[in-house]
Amino acid sequence: MKIAYKVWLDQNGKAFGDGPYELLKRVEKTESLHQAAKQMDMSYSKAWCLIRSLEERLDFPLLGRKVGGPSGGGSKVTPQGKTLMNHYKRFRKEVEKDLEKIYRKHFDDIERKKWK
Amino acid sequence: MKIAYKVWLDQNGKAFGDGPYELLKRVEKTESLHQAAKQMDMSYSKAWCLIRSLEERLDFPLLGRKVGGPSGGGSKVTPQGKTLMNHYKRFRKEVEKDLEKIYRKHFDDIERKKWK
Repeated sequence: MKIAYKVWLDQNGKAFGDGPYELLKRVEKTESLHQAAKQMDMSYSKAWCLIRSLEERLDFPLLGRKVGGPSGGGSKVTPQGKTLMNHYKRFRKEVEKDLEKIYRKHFDDIERKKWK
Repeated sequence: MKIAYKVWLDQNGKAFGDGPYELLKRVEKTESLHQAAKQMDMSYSKAWCLIRSLEERLDFPLLGRKVGGPSGGGSKVTPQGKTLMNHYKRFRKEVEKDLEKIYRKHFDDIERKKWK
């Protein structure tokens, strides 16, 4: 047996979580929401709507326009978006570590005894 | 903003979680899976199938037959089921407390600053 979980930030609905984090991570790398969405097997319109709904709930922009460059622009993560990503990353790592520990504390012993 | 999460025990699929805990809790009180399901707005057949699939994954019985009594029988939680419930209850409480703490640690400060 093992622990399973989903965790996210809520503000009148899902405001941030693993999926959005992954998407922004890929925007940072590719500087393109098109590319980021494609890498995640997500349609561009779905990715766009997701970002817009998160921004509405968070009340700050996650993506900005990158102007110029050889490819003629693209998307970039805003400073506020980066701050959120950094906090979320550390938060998420600690959640994982702690939940695993709590699970082991409460179930390891009883599992070894095969629930007798 | 706040933290939101779902947590459950997995063994080749969902093996136990808040819903099953609540259902068993009500079986303990009512000594009837019928009554317990009804209180949770769940059909008896759905509750029955849920219990069977959990038992299959856990590899031990959760419910047994209560024989006799004025109402002529009913359901009762097995000793293994009770052990699971007790462990789950303590596990769940600690999960809640810890996740709230981790959330505050990583987001309280930045929220106060309004993500500036």
